[in-house]
Amino acid sequence: MILSALLTSVGINFSLCFIFFTLYSILREQPGNIPVYASRLVSEDKLPEAQFNLGRRPTAGWMRRAWEPSEDELISNAGLDAFVFMRIFVFSVKVFTFGGIVGILILLPINFMGTQIRDDSDFPNKSLDSFSISNVNNGSKRLWIHFCAAYVFTAVVCILLYHEYAYISSKRIACFFSAKPEPHQFTILVRGIPVPPESNCQETVERFFMEYHPSTYLTNSVVRRSSKLQVLIFIISMKTDAERLYKRLTQLKHKDNSPNRYRRDGCFGIFGQKVDMVDQYEKTLGDIEDNVRIEQSSIEGKEVPAAFVSFKSRFGAATALKIQGGINPTNWITEKAPEPHDVYWPFFSVTFIRRWISKLVAFIAFIVLTILFLIPVALVQGLTHLDQLETMFPALKDILRTALVTQVITGYLPIQILHLFLSLVPQIMIILSSLQGHISWSQIQKSACTKVLWFTIWNLFFANVLSGSALYRLNIFLEPKEFPRVLAEAVPTQASFFIAYVVTSGWTNIALELFQSDRLFYNYIDRIFGGESDEDFEAPSIPYHREVPRILFFGLLGVTYFILAPLILPFLVVYFCVGYIIYRNQLLNVYIPKYQTGGEFWPTVHNYTIFSLLLMHIIVIGIFGLKKLPLASGLTLPLPILTFLFNEYCRKRFLPIFEAYPAECLIKKDRQDQEDQNMSEFYEKLANAYKDPALMPIKYSGMFLGHKHRSPLLQSSSEA
Amino acid sequence: MILSALLTSVGINFSLCFIFFTLYSILREQPGNIPVYASRLVSEDKLPEAQFNLGRRPTAGWMRRAWEPSEDELISNAGLDAFVFMRIFVFSVKVFTFGGIVGILILLPINFMGTQIRDDSDFPNKSLDSFSISNVNNGSKRLWIHFCAAYVFTAVVCILLYHEYAYISSKRIACFFSAKPEPHQFTILVRGIPVPPESNCQETVERFFMEYHPSTYLTNSVVRRSSKLQVLIFIISMKTDAERLYKRLTQLKHKDNSPNRYRRDGCFGIFGQKVDMVDQYEKTLGDIEDNVRIEQSSIEGKEVPAAFVSFKSRFGAATALKIQGGINPTNWITEKAPEPHDVYWPFFSVTFIRRWISKLVAFIAFIVLTILFLIPVALVQGLTHLDQLETMFPALKDILRTALVTQVITGYLPIQILHLFLSLVPQIMIILSSLQGHISWSQIQKSACTKVLWFTIWNLFFANVLSGSALYRLNIFLEPKEFPRVLAEAVPTQASFFIAYVVTSGWTNIALELFQSDRLFYNYIDRIFGGESDEDFEAPSIPYHREVPRILFFGLLGVTYFILAPLILPFLVVYFCVGYIIYRNQLLNVYIPKYQTGGEFWPTVHNYTIFSLLLMHIIVIGIFGLKKLPLASGLTLPLPILTFLFNEYCRKRFLPIFEAYPAECLIKKDRQDQEDQNMSEFYEKLANAYKDPALMPIKYSGMFLGHKHRSPLLQSSSEA
Repeated sequence: MILSALLTSVGINFSLCFIFFTLYSILREQPGNIPVYASRLVSEDKLPEAQFNLGRRPTAGWMRRAWEPSEDELISNAGLDAFVFMRIFVFSVKVFTFGGIVGILILLPINFMGTQIRDDSDFPNKSLDSFSISNVNNGSKRLWIHFCAAYVFTAVVCILLYHEYAYISSKRIACFFSAKPEPHQFTILVRGIPVPPESNCQETVERFFMEYHPSTYLTNSVVRRSSKLQVLIFIISMKTDAERLYKRLTQLKHKDNSPNRYRRDGCFGIFGQKVDMVDQYEKTLGDIEDNVRIEQSSIEGKEVPAAFVSFKSRFGAATALKIQGGINPTNWITEKAPEPHDVYWPFFSVTFIRRWISKLVAFIAFIVLTILFLIPVALVQGLTHLDQLETMFPALKDILRTALVTQVITGYLPIQILHLFLSLVPQIMIILSSLQGHISWSQIQKSACTKVLWFTIWNLFFANVLSGSALYRLNIFLEPKEFPRVLAEAVPTQASFFIAYVVTSGWTNIALELFQSDRLFYNYIDRIFGGESDEDFEAPSIPYHREVPRILFFGLLGVTYFILAPLILPFLVVYFCVGYIIYRNQLLNVYIPKYQTGGEFWPTVHNYTIFSLLLMHIIVIGIFGLKKLPLASGLTLPLPILTFLFNEYCRKRFLPIFEAYPAECLIKKDRQDQEDQNMSEFYEKLANAYKDPALMPIKYSGMFLGHKHRSPLLQSSSEA
Repeated sequence: MILSALLTSVGINFSLCFIFFTLYSILREQPGNIPVYASRLVSEDKLPEAQFNLGRRPTAGWMRRAWEPSEDELISNAGLDAFVFMRIFVFSVKVFTFGGIVGILILLPINFMGTQIRDDSDFPNKSLDSFSISNVNNGSKRLWIHFCAAYVFTAVVCILLYHEYAYISSKRIACFFSAKPEPHQFTILVRGIPVPPESNCQETVERFFMEYHPSTYLTNSVVRRSSKLQVLIFIISMKTDAERLYKRLTQLKHKDNSPNRYRRDGCFGIFGQKVDMVDQYEKTLGDIEDNVRIEQSSIEGKEVPAAFVSFKSRFGAATALKIQGGINPTNWITEKAPEPHDVYWPFFSVTFIRRWISKLVAFIAFIVLTILFLIPVALVQGLTHLDQLETMFPALKDILRTALVTQVITGYLPIQILHLFLSLVPQIMIILSSLQGHISWSQIQKSACTKVLWFTIWNLFFANVLSGSALYRLNIFLEPKEFPRVLAEAVPTQASFFIAYVVTSGWTNIALELFQSDRLFYNYIDRIFGGESDEDFEAPSIPYHREVPRILFFGLLGVTYFILAPLILPFLVVYFCVGYIIYRNQLLNVYIPKYQTGGEFWPTVHNYTIFSLLLMHIIVIGIFGLKKLPLASGLTLPLPILTFLFNEYCRKRFLPIFEAYPAECLIKKDRQDQEDQNMSEFYEKLANAYKDPALMPIKYSGMFLGHKHRSPLLQSSSEA
């Protein structure tokens, strides 16, 4: 790629983004788009009416409003996870601003002064390689500046990582202190309960904890779950029906005597006698409830040897969690309980061996999918070859030979197929993770996030860098000695591709994120065809497992290319700065947090950054070898070792905070609670907090209180 | 090696062992050898007088007496560690009896029927290779029997491993239940105490645990330790002097008015006036004690931010151990406390950074020593080349050219040098482990044991199998793909060497272990020159870090050569059977347990056996490849994976029992204690249990009670 081409690409993408931004600031003011651009505010009933009627000219006011709230406001609004997500941007901006200054002011001129690549064209036609380390002469003393830059950059990244980890840890602790008592803090999940033949699970758990934790044990709720999936599905669909009917009913009763209320009961609602729909709905609801009750009672007796055990104090729960209960360590296995609405119930219905096998299968499927992903994609892309299409659809021959169609099919379709496949990956990883035996949606999401991260590194970074078959790439990993050399040869050649990738894919992605084109489209369709849809309205939650890997991948590119091709850095800084504003806006206005992990994404981010640094070091070691400077190559060796030791220290220093809360916090918080008047009420709630929603009795026919936006199903499970 | 040579070697070694056994059964009846062959009984004052005067003819009665005690008697006599040590023999006998039957009756005939190695000599001159898998024809269908044998053998070993782990776990729990309350069960070690500037360590610990563990906290003893090593060494030497004087005094007082009591105070005790030695000794003792007290007070004020914190119950201690104390995880680091006399005090005197560095240094030193060990040995061995010796010592020219001297120097000396170096290794590993920051002698021993294990595998197994330089061997490990092929080519060729190794080194080692030649020699010297030595008498403890790796290495040979050369198995069975009797005898009569790890050696044994199995599988995969049976090679692949999964299951099922006791045990035991009358007395003892012996006040001048065999120093620290 030459310089002028890059500038053109930057220009085009910049204009595209500008258009999207302008469109956004117009469209967001349209009342009809409020469910798209302020879905969170709608679902929380916090819609400031005045603000959305300012007129229809484009303004940048939303940027100011996204920028203004302090971090504490962000935490209280969007939760700790959103805060951690935003810290990725803050951290990246810091790192790449420093890297960019060093790279553009020091490394870039040195690279440009080299004469290794003979490129006599004038400046605008210079190849981008002239700005990369490939252009520095072999054995040049100037490479020692690159060597120093590697050390300085690593040191700066490590210092920033340390401070970030410390800052987020302190926020996590602060959030714990400021939070109200919540069921999952007082509860643990116990599995592998050894139920004696003459007793049942409930009694066994009761006896065990009364015996060994008499002072703190409060109550337990045994998981009842059938493996009869059909029955469960039937119940859940029934419940959904009931819920819908209930909503209809509420609606009808509110709009008293509306024309919809009475309808003829004959064919198409035209003939037959007039019937009060309210009565009819209530009758159907009653029937459904009876059915559900019968089905529930048929499976209710079957207990799974697992129970949610609640304690009177957080410290009591932590003690029972940490100290192995029975003599056999495979009995009384304890685990932190997730938030009640975060529990992934299907997990409980499978047996131990099936869970074990499905875990293995999920792991193998992940490996195979990751390594061989590009093979089916290439096959499908191959189908778009014109000659093949012509043989398959001879009728299309004429159309296919048109110049425009040819261009679209050969130039555009393969990339779109790749994008389509890539966009399915996060969802596939969620399915694989849900097979792995995680007990909560948040854990599934976290695990899927890690999977997508590795998938991205393999199929975006290594697949582009080490062009060749998947097996060829695997082979390189099996020969660790050759690894730095191969990478050093391959990575710099892809610099211009990745610069273009940042500008096109990166910039467009965040513009699209802001624009929410698909949701806008669905909303438009909805407004035209469906009338009642805004009763069902639920704001989306941000898919961390899709967003975090995408953003971190740009971080990886920045870190690995800092030494090789510093030209990438300014574009990254722009990406992260704009991303900061836009995601802040989205988190405050669009997305609603469904469950909280308490910032547990940060250790993943930290590890990934360390991995990026190590990868950069390996490449740099290889580069110095290729550039005939073996001394520099040797002297870089301590760098990955020091980075590794730094990571070990951070694991000791911060990771335990993200795994469990220390005694100091637990006990202080417990003492605060003791002074609280509402605790006895909370304990009562605790007893019913962990019930399987499929087995919760439904009582719609009697209740007609207005729950506006949260489904009564969810409400009953989280409030009860 | 040919068959007749092997039989000759077996004959010679068998006769040697027989001679040793006969000599032993004669020598052990000599009253003068009692401190050697019944040192444990002597030191425990349990010597049955009658038994040792039976006359001087050789009997095998000791074998019966070693065989008779049940396992529970062994545990109560020699501790759980000795029991675990003996289970290694029981387990190995079971494994290799099964392996031997399969190997000799099925595999050996099949190997012998092959014609791959053309060996037309008559039966006694057949090469041992004719009995190994090398002799089976390439591509022969008979190799499928070897294939089945690999699966069956692995299954049997895994089943036996499982039962052994279960059995030892149950014994560990039983021992815990039957044990009296001991200080280390109620105590944890806390490090990284964040002492605020206005307070001291003692107060900080007190405040923290009173705040967060008010109901269970009992007391703490802060570690006071100077880094002034000279002062400490001075104090310890003073104390040793005082102890010796004290013993002299006790001795003199017992033998009242003995001729030794009065001595002239002049030159050589001949001139000058007669002095009562008792008075003089008491005076000196008083002086020493004053000195020690002054030195102690000079360092006593310096606290180390570490403390032994004792609790009222075992469960309280476990809770404080398991739940992270402060918000900063590098503060209030908890660790299980070792038994009071097991504490490795010098560990506390070094700073955090120094400990961290020395840990790293110890690790690197271990790696370097292990990999490059054979280089210095080869250099020293090279010095024994005759021509070099002649150049260095021209005067010895004539002697060096004698036939006998030549033979000794070239044939015998190099092996002896290797043995000398090898015998130093366990001690070196102990030194390296003591640098690693372990807080107790037992942990140091355990860690040294693991080090010696890896050292043995590398320098005995791989060094013999992969002949060539250390770097060449390292290279093979860096090319994982080539590994099975290289091993499959190299390992079978060394079969006859290792068979000879079992017969010579193995059998002789256990005979020498019984005979205790070096201790017998020292005892003889002592009896001639020293009169008072038996006052200082202390029985040795068994050096697990030397014995366990040695014995396990024979297990590794048996497992890896089971398929390749089953001829090794009968000799191993003999080794383990005889070893069982002999070590039982030694544990009951000779060695005294100094500290208990509670059977924590078993997980090491288990892992090592799994490693042996995996190594065997890799070799078998390579062998089938070489023998042109790729299908069998492929079908063997699941075997290591299944073995690995089995190991993972065992880690979940049993390992936690060896790491901490479960709540069930702790609380049951605590409740038993509550009914005990002596607990208040025990709590008082607890407060002083963990004091640095270097800082214990000495009070010999006043006390003259007869402590016969244990030193008062030890007694005061373990009883106080």
